[in-house]
Amino acid sequence: MAYNYQLLLKHLLHQGLTWAPDQQIIYRDHVRFTYCSFYQRVLQLGGALESLGCGLGAKIGVIDWDSHRYLEMYFGIPGIGAILHTINPGIAPKDLLYTLVHAEDEILIFHEDFIPLVESLIPFLPTVHKYILIRDNPVAQTLGWVNLEYEELLANAIPLKELPDLDENTIATISYTSGTTGKPKGVFFTQRQLTLQTLSDAVALSALGNYGGVSKHDVYMPLTPMYHGHAWGMPYVATMLGLKQVYPGKYEIPRIIQLIIDEKVTFSHCVPTILQKIVGTPLVRDLDLSQWKVIVGGSALSKSLAIEASRLGIKVYGGYGLSETCPVLTISNLKPGMEAWNDEKKLDWMIKPGFTIPLVYLKVIDSNGKEVAKNGRDAGEILVRSPWCTQAYFKDVDLSEKLWDGDWLHTGDIGTIDEYGYIQIVDRFKDIIKTGGEWIVSLELEKMLSSFTGILDVAVIGIPDQKWGERPLVLMESRSGCMDDLTAENLKTHLQKYVLDGKLAAWAVPDFYACINEIPKTNVGKHDKKALRTLINQDGWLSEHIKLTN
Amino acid sequence: MAYNYQLLLKHLLHQGLTWAPDQQIIYRDHVRFTYCSFYQRVLQLGGALESLGCGLGAKIGVIDWDSHRYLEMYFGIPGIGAILHTINPGIAPKDLLYTLVHAEDEILIFHEDFIPLVESLIPFLPTVHKYILIRDNPVAQTLGWVNLEYEELLANAIPLKELPDLDENTIATISYTSGTTGKPKGVFFTQRQLTLQTLSDAVALSALGNYGGVSKHDVYMPLTPMYHGHAWGMPYVATMLGLKQVYPGKYEIPRIIQLIIDEKVTFSHCVPTILQKIVGTPLVRDLDLSQWKVIVGGSALSKSLAIEASRLGIKVYGGYGLSETCPVLTISNLKPGMEAWNDEKKLDWMIKPGFTIPLVYLKVIDSNGKEVAKNGRDAGEILVRSPWCTQAYFKDVDLSEKLWDGDWLHTGDIGTIDEYGYIQIVDRFKDIIKTGGEWIVSLELEKMLSSFTGILDVAVIGIPDQKWGERPLVLMESRSGCMDDLTAENLKTHLQKYVLDGKLAAWAVPDFYACINEIPKTNVGKHDKKALRTLINQDGWLSEHIKLTN
Repeated sequence: MAYNYQLLLKHLLHQGLTWAPDQQIIYRDHVRFTYCSFYQRVLQLGGALESLGCGLGAKIGVIDWDSHRYLEMYFGIPGIGAILHTINPGIAPKDLLYTLVHAEDEILIFHEDFIPLVESLIPFLPTVHKYILIRDNPVAQTLGWVNLEYEELLANAIPLKELPDLDENTIATISYTSGTTGKPKGVFFTQRQLTLQTLSDAVALSALGNYGGVSKHDVYMPLTPMYHGHAWGMPYVATMLGLKQVYPGKYEIPRIIQLIIDEKVTFSHCVPTILQKIVGTPLVRDLDLSQWKVIVGGSALSKSLAIEASRLGIKVYGGYGLSETCPVLTISNLKPGMEAWNDEKKLDWMIKPGFTIPLVYLKVIDSNGKEVAKNGRDAGEILVRSPWCTQAYFKDVDLSEKLWDGDWLHTGDIGTIDEYGYIQIVDRFKDIIKTGGEWIVSLELEKMLSSFTGILDVAVIGIPDQKWGERPLVLMESRSGCMDDLTAENLKTHLQKYVLDGKLAAWAVPDFYACINEIPKTNVGKHDKKALRTLINQDGWLSEHIKLTN
Repeated sequence: MAYNYQLLLKHLLHQGLTWAPDQQIIYRDHVRFTYCSFYQRVLQLGGALESLGCGLGAKIGVIDWDSHRYLEMYFGIPGIGAILHTINPGIAPKDLLYTLVHAEDEILIFHEDFIPLVESLIPFLPTVHKYILIRDNPVAQTLGWVNLEYEELLANAIPLKELPDLDENTIATISYTSGTTGKPKGVFFTQRQLTLQTLSDAVALSALGNYGGVSKHDVYMPLTPMYHGHAWGMPYVATMLGLKQVYPGKYEIPRIIQLIIDEKVTFSHCVPTILQKIVGTPLVRDLDLSQWKVIVGGSALSKSLAIEASRLGIKVYGGYGLSETCPVLTISNLKPGMEAWNDEKKLDWMIKPGFTIPLVYLKVIDSNGKEVAKNGRDAGEILVRSPWCTQAYFKDVDLSEKLWDGDWLHTGDIGTIDEYGYIQIVDRFKDIIKTGGEWIVSLELEKMLSSFTGILDVAVIGIPDQKWGERPLVLMESRSGCMDDLTAENLKTHLQKYVLDGKLAAWAVPDFYACINEIPKTNVGKHDKKALRTLINQDGWLSEHIKLTN
C-alpha cells in the first residue's frame, strides 16, 4: 500500500539536481554544463542503452579517463538496472581481456585513446556485441568495427521520462582487483551499497571532517581514477551535495594544477604519487593552494610528503579502503580533543589511514584470532564489516569463502590500532611471515634493516621451514663496495638493538640472508614480492644464494 | 556467506561510542556520565527487559521528560527487538488511555511526575503487566502497584554482552498523532527507517547546513520533546556524531537557559512557543547566545520572532515534518548562492520550512492532482516519499489507504513551493474549503479579513453547499462597539481589494458571515476548527447566526 522506497542511486542524483539545478559540471576545457543538462544526458543515456537492448543485469564495460561522461555512466547505467563495469586501462592487456570475458560484458564504451587496445581485443570478446567510441576530438577517422559514437548515441536517443524504480539489491557496478596474486578478482556492489556508502562518506567528510569539513561550498575534482573503486565514492557524494564538479580527463599534472586554480577546486583525493608530483612541480610554489583539501590513500602518506604539501597550504589527511569494500572504510578525521594537540602530533594522526566512518566495524586480530591491544604497536589482520562490502568475488566460491571467513571481511592488510581507534597499515597479509604460530611483519624488518650501512634496498619474504612453517629470508641490494660488511653476524647484531629496545621479538631475527642484483619492483615502485618468490623458487636458487646463513 | 549487514540503531550507537567514548551525556544537574557508561546502561536495560520476558515486538510504553534515560530507551528497547512506545503526557487522559490500550503495551515506564496519572489508568490497562517507576528524587513513598524502579532494574540486570543482530525491518518505535480529528492514530518506524533518517539528517545539517553546519564540535540539547517524533530524530544524530548531549528534563525556561550557558549548548530544535519564551525572558539580554543554532518547526516561525532571536545572536532556521514521517522532511538550508543575498531576504528564506533533505521527494498538487507552479503562491497539498515514512496507521486499514493514496504520503498540509524549491505551509488540508472543484485556503482569507477594522479574531471554515460542495463561512469575534460595521457588504468590499490585486479569486469571496462571542482555541492557541464545526452543526445554529448573508 505504502510506496516501497528502495535505496537507489537516482535518489542521490535527485537531491543534487533539485538543490543545485544550475550548478556546473566541467570536463577539462572541453565541456561545461549544468546539473539540469547532466540529468537530461543521463536520461538520454538510459534511453539509448535500452534501445540497444540493455536491460536488468546487462554488463557494460567502460574504459575512459575521469570525465563528465563517466559520471553520466555512474548514474545512467545502474539507473536502468544494467551493471557498470569500470575498467582499469593500466593493467596488463591479458588481465584486461580476462576481466572483459569473465564479466561477460555486452557493450564496451571506450575513449579514443584506447582504440588500439580495444581493436587488439575484439577477436577474443565473444560476448561484446556493441563497441561505442568516445571522442574528445573531431572525427579523425571512421572505424569499421565501431558501432556508435557516444555523443551520437545520446543525441539520437529517446530520453527516458525518468529512471525506473528497481530493487535496491540490484547490482550496480562490477570491477576487478588488480590481481597482484593470481587472476584479477571481480567485486560487485548494489545500488543500496553505493547509496549507503555515499551517505556515510558525506557524514564523515562533513560533520566529522577536518578543516571545517566538506560542505555545499566545496568544488570537487577526483584524482583517483573513476575506474578505481568508484573514485572512492566521491562523485556520488559530490552529486548528492550538488557541488561544482571538475573532471580532469587523463591525469596530466600541469592540467590538473591549472584546473585547481581556474575552477577553484577545494576538495580532491589521490594516492601519494599524484600528490608528490603536484607538490614537486616548481610552479605550485607561487600558487595559493590553501583552499585545497586532499584525502590521501591507496598507500601510506609519508610524513615528509604531508609536511611538504602543508607548506604549500594544502590540507591533507589520510583515508583507507579497498576494492572489496566499495571502498571507503576509514578517514583520518581528528576528534575534537585532538585539535588542541601541537601541529606535529596532529599531523602524525592525520597521515594515518584514520578512524572508521559511520556504520563500519573494524577489528585487528592476531594469529590466534584474538583482537590485538589498542596500543598502535601490536599488529594483526584488519577485518571489517560495513553495509557496502562486496558480498563475494564474482564467480569464485572458494575465494569468497576465504574473504568472508568467520563472517568478517578479511582485508588482507596487516595493521595496528591505537588507543584512539586509529589504524595504521603495516604490511599485506600475504607478505607477513608466519613462523611458529606468530607473525613477523616484513615491512618492519625491512625498515630496521634499511638503516644498516651498505644496504641500498632490502626486502624480506617468508620461505618454507619444516620446523616453524616459515622463516624470514632477507634479500638485499648492496651499495657498491659494501658487500663485505653484509655478514649475517653484522646484520643480526644490528637487529639485536631493536630486540633490546623491545621493538623486535628475538625469534623474529632472520637466519637467512642473500644479496641480489636488483629487487624487482611493481609499476608503482613497490617491491614485487610475487616476482621475488618466483625468483627464489627456481631450482637451486636458494642453496646457491643464501651465503650469509649463520 | 557474507555478513548480512542490517541497518540497525545499534550501529549509530557504535559509531558515537567508539569515536567519543569519554564524551559526556548530561541530565539537568542530576547526572553526568560518558558514552561508555551510557552504552553499559543500554546493555543493562536490554538485559533487564529480556529478563522481564520482553522479546521481539513487545511494546513498552514510556512517559518521561527529556532525559538520559529516554536516550537509553531510544537504543535499548529497539536494541532487543522490542518496540518503544513514546507517550505524550500532555494529551487528554482518555486519549492517552486509548493509545496504551490500542498499542497493547506490556510494560509501562513512567516518571514520578506521572504517578497520579498512571495510577488512575491502571484499572483500564489489561495488557500492562509491569509498572516501572523513574525517580529523580530520593524515595518519598513506596507504591504497592509499582513493580520496579528504573535504576534498581538496571543495577540488578545482567547486562547483555552486546545488542543482538535483528532484521532491519523490525519495528523500533510507535507513537500516536495528537488526534485533532478523530481518535489518535498510531504511526510506527523500523530500525532501517530511523537509521536512514539519521544519516540523511546528519548530511542535511552538516554538509548542507547553515552557519557552518552542525559538526563534531556541537553540544546538543533537544527542546522538542523526546515523546514527540523522536525529538525530530536529533538524539540519534547527536549520538552517531558523538556529540556532548544535554537533556533538560521537563521544559522550564530558567533551567533551559541555565543549561545552554553552563554546558555551552550550540544546537537545539524547538517550536516557536519555546523560542518565544526564551527570547522573552529578560535575563537572556545579558547573555551571549551567538553560538546557539536552533531549528524551529512544528508551526510557522514568524519573521518577528526570528528577528527578535537574531538580535540576541541566536541562529534560527526552519524545518518541517510530521509524525507520519519520522518526522524530518525539510530544513531551511540556504543554498550557496543565497548566502550573497541581503540579510532580510536571507531571513525570509530561513524562516520557511525549507528544502527537502537527501532522499526525500516532495510535490505540491492542486485539487486536480496536478503539480502547482513553483512560484511561492499557488497552493496545493504536500505529498511526500522518503525511506522513513510510516508504512501505515497502526491497525487502521482505511486511514492507511487514504494516507498512501496514489503511492504518495498525503501530509494533510497545504503549501506552496517557490522557484528555489522551498516550501511554505499555508493551511491544513482538512481546513481548506473545497468549492466547485477549487480550493480556498482558509488561513489566507482569515489573514485578509483580520485587517478589517473591528474584527478581533476571525476563522473561516467550509459549510456544505448543494451547488458548490462547500462554501466558506466567516466567523468573527468583534471588537466591542464595532458590530455595526461588520456587514456582509463592507466585508465583501474589503475583500474585493484583494480580488483586484489578483490575490484572491472572485469566487472565493465568502457569502456567509456570522459573529460569535469567542472562537474556540486549542491548548497551543490555534483556532480549534473541530470545535467550531461541532458548534455550527448544532440544530438551527446556522439559520440563527448567519445574519450577514448577502
